[in-house]
Amino acid sequence: MRIISAIDSMKGSLTSISANSVIKEVFSDNHVVTEIAISDGGEGMVDAFVHNFRATKISIPVSNLFGKPIETSFAWIEKEKIAVIESASTSGIQFINKSSNTHPRESSTRGVGETIKYAAKHGAKKIIIGLGGTGTIDCGVGALYALGVRFYDEHNNNIIPTGKHLGLINKIDTNGVSNEIKNVEIILASDVVSQLIGSDGAVYMFGKQKGLQESEMEEYEEATTKFSHLISSERDFTNGDGAAGGLGFGLRQILNAEYQSGLEVVLSYSDFYNQLKETDLLITGEGKLDSQSLKGKVPVGLGNIAKNLNIPVIAFVGSSEGNSEDFANNGLNVVIPIIDGFYTIEDAMQEARSNLLRTAQRTKTLLELL
Amino acid sequence: MRIISAIDSMKGSLTSISANSVIKEVFSDNHVVTEIAISDGGEGMVDAFVHNFRATKISIPVSNLFGKPIETSFAWIEKEKIAVIESASTSGIQFINKSSNTHPRESSTRGVGETIKYAAKHGAKKIIIGLGGTGTIDCGVGALYALGVRFYDEHNNNIIPTGKHLGLINKIDTNGVSNEIKNVEIILASDVVSQLIGSDGAVYMFGKQKGLQESEMEEYEEATTKFSHLISSERDFTNGDGAAGGLGFGLRQILNAEYQSGLEVVLSYSDFYNQLKETDLLITGEGKLDSQSLKGKVPVGLGNIAKNLNIPVIAFVGSSEGNSEDFANNGLNVVIPIIDGFYTIEDAMQEARSNLLRTAQRTKTLLELL
Repeated sequence: MRIISAIDSMKGSLTSISANSVIKEVFSDNHVVTEIAISDGGEGMVDAFVHNFRATKISIPVSNLFGKPIETSFAWIEKEKIAVIESASTSGIQFINKSSNTHPRESSTRGVGETIKYAAKHGAKKIIIGLGGTGTIDCGVGALYALGVRFYDEHNNNIIPTGKHLGLINKIDTNGVSNEIKNVEIILASDVVSQLIGSDGAVYMFGKQKGLQESEMEEYEEATTKFSHLISSERDFTNGDGAAGGLGFGLRQILNAEYQSGLEVVLSYSDFYNQLKETDLLITGEGKLDSQSLKGKVPVGLGNIAKNLNIPVIAFVGSSEGNSEDFANNGLNVVIPIIDGFYTIEDAMQEARSNLLRTAQRTKTLLELL
Repeated sequence: MRIISAIDSMKGSLTSISANSVIKEVFSDNHVVTEIAISDGGEGMVDAFVHNFRATKISIPVSNLFGKPIETSFAWIEKEKIAVIESASTSGIQFINKSSNTHPRESSTRGVGETIKYAAKHGAKKIIIGLGGTGTIDCGVGALYALGVRFYDEHNNNIIPTGKHLGLINKIDTNGVSNEIKNVEIILASDVVSQLIGSDGAVYMFGKQKGLQESEMEEYEEATTKFSHLISSERDFTNGDGAAGGLGFGLRQILNAEYQSGLEVVLSYSDFYNQLKETDLLITGEGKLDSQSLKGKVPVGLGNIAKNLNIPVIAFVGSSEGNSEDFANNGLNVVIPIIDGFYTIEDAMQEARSNLLRTAQRTKTLLELL
């Protein structure tokens, strides 16, 4: 049997690459397993390109979301001069400890801009930016500042902007953006469908996990709205602008940037579609799958692709809620929780690898049983 | 596909019959499911005979293990004049609340003896007594007393014995046992392998769950040993005597009683062996399966039978420990825990039916997937 394993990361416990390696370990004694590293534009996108497409990894010194020096890396495809950036690697929520000085007001996507600049200097014709997982809500002003855009308040003072400045910005000057940057094609890789403003937007939907208090939301939403009207006088809003604290929205307004599905981008730079024609079984999965919120989920995207080709799909999940019909309608024939005992969530995450291993072994035995 | 479902009870949550009905519900849309109710001689044995063999159920008034009047029932096979008794239904651990007056010292198997007497009067030629699940440690003296045996202390006082009298009994008079009783063939149905005396015996292994304190064990063991030497001067001890607080041991010494495997007895009075020849898949299971203690477990017994006929076996379990190789060596090709989320043991037992249902549905889909 020919199997594709394309499991998304189980956040906090297993990367896509390590989850796939478990499937390979279990099934490869008598099946052919192709591992496709997966990402929706968040965690693991750079590694997916390195793993799937033999991109190289280039390390650079940049700033994190609070301006602290860190090292990050982007993936580099020399032949096509493509750079792949994870915005979370510099501006990720992992740097936030929910103290007052790690609040979204104090953070920015400056490191993303710095990475874009490095990539452009390295000769990139195309830069793919994985959105998702940031600890910022700055509409991309930090990144834009790093790329030469300047922001002024009502007294014409130059601002080095973080989240708290969104409502204060009165004028935007884009003259400082170099031609080198302007000529790069920028792809914003994301499977988030929410808008910048509103109840499912950057503030109300994603603010809390970044440290915003309920009581701060209304004010933050107003500032974000004010800034969005300034930078986009034509009110050019679209689905996906709510991702990464509005980073994509900001980059769309000033630079030549466009959204693409994160999953699609990753798959198109892998052997996935080529292998799929010959595949008898697709194995996917992720940390949590809920039939109420199927939009933008990697296993669901893969399930629908496989369904069109009548390829059966098994999804291994950390936990799952919802009914099997909704899953099956999206091509996920069987959704199998890897929990097989009495665990707390913390213990289960700790034991994710061995839980996946045992569950995959049972599944293999069942598939081969009759 | 032809399937036999023979799942043992999941104690405290699902009977064998209800567990099998879940399998029937899931698989019978496109498979033929034969349900075989299962018991190892403990809980569910009477119902297994009623379900599998169309035995009738006869209700009678008897005493429970503390002498309180209760109603119980035995299964009756008219054609062969066979009665089937569960010792736990009168002398079961479910009557114990671990207060001082529900201590094994105060309890006896009198109700079992009363039930035997009723069954014999009803015309039984053979009485099958399911051991297991009793709250007694009385070496069967309560049952024997009800059947006419008399016990005397060193002052020749007649004793109506409970557990606490074992060490005081000095003389046993069996003249009061009627011929009606003496002529009945008594089968002690049990899959327990422990001896009466010793570290895996009636006191040290099973005493704690019946309310014996650690500090009481040595004294209780001594009294049991003293009594066992009195009633069995030839020291006729065998595996299984440790079951049901020595009930089988006592009945063996005075009456025409013999051990048989509880599982074997139940299977032999069902359509199991007949169906098995035509079966493509055997589904079994139980509450807890541990590869360290496989002896006497229903799924293991069934697994080994199926293995000899190369019939694949799936075991659904409440929880499982141990490695799949040990299970597979006993014919259990796949052991599948029905836990599929974050449960406490209590919640999981509460939700056992729906957990089994979902797990069986996933399993069916996997079996049919390729």
